[in-house]
Amino acid sequence: MERNVFFISDRTGITAEMLGQSLLSQFEDNVRFNQKTLPFIDTPEKAHDAVARINAAAENADNRPLIFETVVRPEIRAIIAESKGIIMDFFHTFIGPLETELGAHSSFSVGKAHSTRNIHAYDTRIAAVNFALNNDDGASTRQYQDADIILVGVSRCGKTPTSLYMAMQFGIRAANYPFTEDDMERLQMPAAVKQFKKKVYGLTIDPMRLHQIRTERRANSRYASLPQCMFEVREVESLYRREQIPFLNTTSRSIEELAATIMAETGLERHIF
Amino acid sequence: MERNVFFISDRTGITAEMLGQSLLSQFEDNVRFNQKTLPFIDTPEKAHDAVARINAAAENADNRPLIFETVVRPEIRAIIAESKGIIMDFFHTFIGPLETELGAHSSFSVGKAHSTRNIHAYDTRIAAVNFALNNDDGASTRQYQDADIILVGVSRCGKTPTSLYMAMQFGIRAANYPFTEDDMERLQMPAAVKQFKKKVYGLTIDPMRLHQIRTERRANSRYASLPQCMFEVREVESLYRREQIPFLNTTSRSIEELAATIMAETGLERHIF
Repeated sequence: MERNVFFISDRTGITAEMLGQSLLSQFEDNVRFNQKTLPFIDTPEKAHDAVARINAAAENADNRPLIFETVVRPEIRAIIAESKGIIMDFFHTFIGPLETELGAHSSFSVGKAHSTRNIHAYDTRIAAVNFALNNDDGASTRQYQDADIILVGVSRCGKTPTSLYMAMQFGIRAANYPFTEDDMERLQMPAAVKQFKKKVYGLTIDPMRLHQIRTERRANSRYASLPQCMFEVREVESLYRREQIPFLNTTSRSIEELAATIMAETGLERHIF
Repeated sequence: MERNVFFISDRTGITAEMLGQSLLSQFEDNVRFNQKTLPFIDTPEKAHDAVARINAAAENADNRPLIFETVVRPEIRAIIAESKGIIMDFFHTFIGPLETELGAHSSFSVGKAHSTRNIHAYDTRIAAVNFALNNDDGASTRQYQDADIILVGVSRCGKTPTSLYMAMQFGIRAANYPFTEDDMERLQMPAAVKQFKKKVYGLTIDPMRLHQIRTERRANSRYASLPQCMFEVREVESLYRREQIPFLNTTSRSIEELAATIMAETGLERHIF
């Protein structure tokens, strides 16, 4: 069974995609979804174009397209409502109950959520991304006193994407430090890291998965070999236990899950919303 | 007026936060929101703990906490429903209508949306992040044939965070190339970039804002001076027009907006959902 799906927004569409994905994933054993995002539908003209696309999809299928929408402007919403799709309205479904509960009218101003209206939040976020880049992969340890967290682990266990995601989504200043092959005999925490031990958080990974990832990068190397991966993971996990460093296995977790788990377990509060 | 807000999920809570933020932003002229995310509420015990926190907040305030939830598991949802908060249920509100429309039962399996079940999607995403890092700031131009897009612009106009966001959210391989001060006299597209002109996308920025950002980084330098910022922006925009390179002003756009706008304008399709 197939079904056309449209994510429609008068902004980026990213929220509609995320919630829509979460809903669709409950049905994907039975249905194949053809997905299309129509972002920035912020004028009546663009809304009519969107309706034309939805209706064209409807005519070429034997069922109605699903529409997941986060359209703020009432006039745009009214146009989309005339399409032949079935609408899941992620925004207006909740605005009424919220107005009642808060005893206030919504401002129906678009683009507040991600706008740079709050320049301070924007700067915090960019500074966090730059911090992650400057303190990636042990490139520098001089700024560790400014870090919110220092992720450690073997090469290719997920430190860099997790650091970047924490910076981008939460404004967290995340440094990361790799344990290299050379560190492995009698593994110790380097002094530069150890002095900030309270901020240190370990990542680990299934050695088979590590072997697979490293093989993509450098096939048939000692670095990628399964015995080496097993050795490094064993040494690093032993260090975590010995030094009582909290740690997390990245193997079957998405970047979002890693970032959110680390936030929850360390009690770190996001710097931006 | 103040109001306590809880974002509750049996997964990361990021979707609940994003949609909740978008709704709250409509009321924030009138209400001050105290926000708390409770992620990974995936056992009855954790759900009861969450209810205790919500009820404690309710008792210390003269109004009900707002609860924005994306809880998939019915048994967890039932426990949260007993709290003293008012619930905006982002997930189950739409599951019923979707089941009816699709003629299928939802699987109520948690963690599908961001799970690494689809290892290929995960690898695509990590590869895109690595690509962005390896091709950041003109560090290398050798992989430009593999790029989906090459962002160009002056130093500090937003290339790096936009590249990283496109990689993280959409799996897009985005390189970026900076026009440096040295390039500015008789500005030309470097040969390494020009041969992939169809993939080139320009960023620009308000010179005053650029001056402000560069001053944060290197105060009182020629690099940060307003005349230099004005000069560089003028030269670069003139290049974009001369070479007919599409371009976007980053000044009042969030990273999400930049990324989604570039996707929409270039017609790039996301590699991951």
